Amino acid sequence: MAKALDGVKVIELCHAYNGPFCGMLLADHGAEVLKIEPPNGDQLRTWGPFDKKSGESGFFAFLNRNKKGITLNLKNEQAREMFYELVKEADVVIENYRAGVAKRLKVDYETLSKINPRLIYGSSSGFGQTGPWSNRPCYDIVAQSMGGLVNITGFPEGIPTKVGASIADNVTGTFLCVGILLALYSREKTGKGQHVDVAMLDTIFSLLENSIVKYTVGGYIPDRQGNIDPSIAPFDIFKAKDGYVAIGVGNDNLFEIFCKTIGHEELLENPKFKTNDLRCQNYIGDLQDTIRDWVGKRNKQDIDDLFGKVGIPCGVVLNMKEAIEHPQIKARDMMVEVDHPTMGKTSFQGVTVKLSETPGAVESPSPLLGQHTQEIFNLSDEEFKELSEKGFF
Amino acid sequence: MAKALDGVKVIELCHAYNGPFCGMLLADHGAEVLKIEPPNGDQLRTWGPFDKKSGESGFFAFLNRNKKGITLNLKNEQAREMFYELVKEADVVIENYRAGVAKRLKVDYETLSKINPRLIYGSSSGFGQTGPWSNRPCYDIVAQSMGGLVNITGFPEGIPTKVGASIADNVTGTFLCVGILLALYSREKTGKGQHVDVAMLDTIFSLLENSIVKYTVGGYIPDRQGNIDPSIAPFDIFKAKDGYVAIGVGNDNLFEIFCKTIGHEELLENPKFKTNDLRCQNYIGDLQDTIRDWVGKRNKQDIDDLFGKVGIPCGVVLNMKEAIEHPQIKARDMMVEVDHPTMGKTSFQGVTVKLSETPGAVESPSPLLGQHTQEIFNLSDEEFKELSEKGFF
Repeated sequence: MAKALDGVKVIELCHAYNGPFCGMLLADHGAEVLKIEPPNGDQLRTWGPFDKKSGESGFFAFLNRNKKGITLNLKNEQAREMFYELVKEADVVIENYRAGVAKRLKVDYETLSKINPRLIYGSSSGFGQTGPWSNRPCYDIVAQSMGGLVNITGFPEGIPTKVGASIADNVTGTFLCVGILLALYSREKTGKGQHVDVAMLDTIFSLLENSIVKYTVGGYIPDRQGNIDPSIAPFDIFKAKDGYVAIGVGNDNLFEIFCKTIGHEELLENPKFKTNDLRCQNYIGDLQDTIRDWVGKRNKQDIDDLFGKVGIPCGVVLNMKEAIEHPQIKARDMMVEVDHPTMGKTSFQGVTVKLSETPGAVESPSPLLGQHTQEIFNLSDEEFKELSEKGFF
Repeated sequence: MAKALDGVKVIELCHAYNGPFCGMLLADHGAEVLKIEPPNGDQLRTWGPFDKKSGESGFFAFLNRNKKGITLNLKNEQAREMFYELVKEADVVIENYRAGVAKRLKVDYETLSKINPRLIYGSSSGFGQTGPWSNRPCYDIVAQSMGGLVNITGFPEGIPTKVGASIADNVTGTFLCVGILLALYSREKTGKGQHVDVAMLDTIFSLLENSIVKYTVGGYIPDRQGNIDPSIAPFDIFKAKDGYVAIGVGNDNLFEIFCKTIGHEELLENPKFKTNDLRCQNYIGDLQDTIRDWVGKRNKQDIDDLFGKVGIPCGVVLNMKEAIEHPQIKARDMMVEVDHPTMGKTSFQGVTVKLSETPGAVESPSPLLGQHTQEIFNLSDEEFKELSEKGFF
């Protein structure tokens, strides 16, 4: 079946998480993604969890499915010439070096766009290609902190809390993908490539939703709210006998259904809870306590089933095993399996964007280190051996 | 200056946060986005913060900049015919009703693609258009919980914690944008539109990075880790005299610089801290305590300046005001200002994806309710009055 990016050639000069996540999205939708690793490999190969039998990184296998892989020593001038040859035929190069490093390696946009003016060049970095912090090193935790997200995550009485997944990495990779696709569409009209520049700090800042306007329009600095939403009540996570459930009751109609369902119609008579606004003001205390008490005496799945029937937004706080095995995750093909040459059958997250006519798919496993080097450069065994000894790969 | 999506016509049948975020990304990059609200308006208009003078929602103003807006009562058959006329000229329709609602309103993909086979139709919902949970209601907190993210956010000794911003909403909106752009690019080759289907549950699940393979490959169920990364140490958030700082020391070389910078070279002699692996195993205790003590005696900005100089990844945990005023946020134009007809000068987040040749921009404010209805349908004052009285708008 045709895919949206059939025929689009991408070179991925990326390591770790953020750039490769973009490469994965492009590859899932049909782009031919060629991952170029330094001779000692992407550092992600050394990050766990590891397959016990083969020693391969499960993290690497997940992020680099559907890609081909070669090694190339870009510090070697002649090896770099071989890279330039690949660039002539490419539509897209993506990189996630720290700002400045691509230039030092002579693989920056300026250099490559002279070789191929149709080239789209995507850069993903901690702070972006411009500005006073451009050259500072960054990790996900730094971008989450400086972007303002850590300060609003967690409980008012607790400390600032980072998100449990590296969303500065993967969401920035997603924005890089948005940029590449914008540039590809634009090139259909103009015939010209361009430079796409995304940053982890910008990305986190862009996700803060109305916390920014709370300051600029509302005039106050928002603080941590725990699991509560200040503008909806009840809207919280509650402890059941055997775990936790999230419950959101967004309007008066739902509140009536909710109170009847939990057998606490007296709450409907209480003037403190007449409207959503009043419930928000008076949530802590009787209302929260009543729900805590009711939830605390029941099993999470029973609560979920009950609210599911009456249409109250509700969901169990699932751990990884439970999420993987959830019928909706299964029905949506959000777990996929590939056959890896050394790991065997391996499973991980599937394709998030569902397209009716050109659906993406996971069809091939991540490459072994340097697996496609000889093939991509069309080298005889002797040539390959010779250039390997010269330190090209 | 030309933008990437110049000439692309988008109709936004969206409310609240998730769909409008996608519409915003498309509009920022040049698409003509026409937002269709029901006669009583997008519910987001009732969500704060509110401008004191005009009563307008700052949240609405942020998410709907660069769009035109009309009201239309899609439940009225004749009004719906006017909508179908707009669809004939549109490239994209996006909607974020609960699954099933678009069909009931007769504005679903099947209906509209018969009117315009080139139409790209994007659906964003809590659980997606397919699967056993498809029709269940969802909020951000439900998707974060069921997607597995809440269970891994927060501290091991604490309770599951939701992310302080509604990332199930805005990241799903970003994936919807990816899907629309894939479909637009594909249509350049095939001439045909298609249906794009994204879900908040799928999105959150896709962001869990290696937590999924920790179970499928590593064989264990990961738990909350607080602010620590189990595979890097030191990597944590520390309390300074006047706030918090995030510090990440990712390898042996950085660890040497770090110890020398904080004047604790004795840590380098300790065999427990020789390698990153050993530091991870032995982090809690002497190593964490030493850093806590050192950071606790200093001001956050001094620490940030010091580590910035020596190249240790570090960043202050910023609140909204501090993030807005950070020189890098300013240098990257991540805050922009528009002149709103009733709010006056209003500022919020800018354009995240930076394109060198076709840069996006924020050029016009969010529409007042029904501001462009008469113009879009090219109605005389009399016609407009008559149809308004008939309940079309």
